Amino acid sequence: MNATAEFERSLLADIPLARAMQLSLQSHADDELVLAAPLAPNVNDKGCAFGGSLCSLLTLAGWGLIVLHLRARASDCEVYVQDSQMRYLAPVWQDFAAHARLADGESWQGFDAALAARGRARLRVLCRVPLADGNDACTLEARFVAIGKR
Amino acid sequence: MNATAEFERSLLADIPLARAMQLSLQSHADDELVLAAPLAPNVNDKGCAFGGSLCSLLTLAGWGLIVLHLRARASDCEVYVQDSQMRYLAPVWQDFAAHARLADGESWQGFDAALAARGRARLRVLCRVPLADGNDACTLEARFVAIGKR
Repeated sequence: MNATAEFERSLLADIPLARAMQLSLQSHADDELVLAAPLAPNVNDKGCAFGGSLCSLLTLAGWGLIVLHLRARASDCEVYVQDSQMRYLAPVWQDFAAHARLADGESWQGFDAALAARGRARLRVLCRVPLADGNDACTLEARFVAIGKR
Repeated sequence: MNATAEFERSLLADIPLARAMQLSLQSHADDELVLAAPLAPNVNDKGCAFGGSLCSLLTLAGWGLIVLHLRARASDCEVYVQDSQMRYLAPVWQDFAAHARLADGESWQGFDAALAARGRARLRVLCRVPLADGNDACTLEARFVAIGKR
């Protein structure tokens, strides 16, 4: 099993809410992770995507981008979300996907160097759920910290 | 069925993720709504509360505080979350509850007056998950908009 398939398997095995959301890993490259979810298990009372599902998927995409980067380097860290700003811009009436990338001004080089030097490093990630028309349904900017295990 | 029991029933009926979280309504007064969830269906890979569950419960508590206020006035509105800032301060290792109150500087009087005058009104709500030691595990400040139905 490759690293992304193993990451998807562990998400679904370890996080009951990820199973309830029927989350799947759509694609991964060093600079972007895309997690997808069908609408049906993630609706709200209005029949569009529940804000909690959107926030969960966006946060997991950001977290996963960093976790997969660290696993590719065999870096044994725990990664925690510290804070986030979420904007809900348009309702989502279909299956959706959260795209996570590094925020402006962030780089893997800076993150890796800080982690090597101090055993912990922070990183801001920008996540969004794009719509078919090219606009974003919602965005999340989140700050994570990675802490090396002793 | 009273208004709070009906609100809990409709949350669980209409939002699959609220069912998956095993959410319950713990208490409600005009100035505070408390929603609770057990840890087991809401754990992450580390065995503490999943950030997406915390964010979902906090957002639902803030939303519900406004919805219940409007229902008590027979005000026929839809309520949407617009944006939020979440801070994760400490891990949660037990069942948890989200407490929602109006944010500093907000009042029901101002909200009701804006809604009556313009058919829509915004409101900021401060939500938190307290720990047994009196500190907060996480906080969410969220802005909602209520829009009257034509």
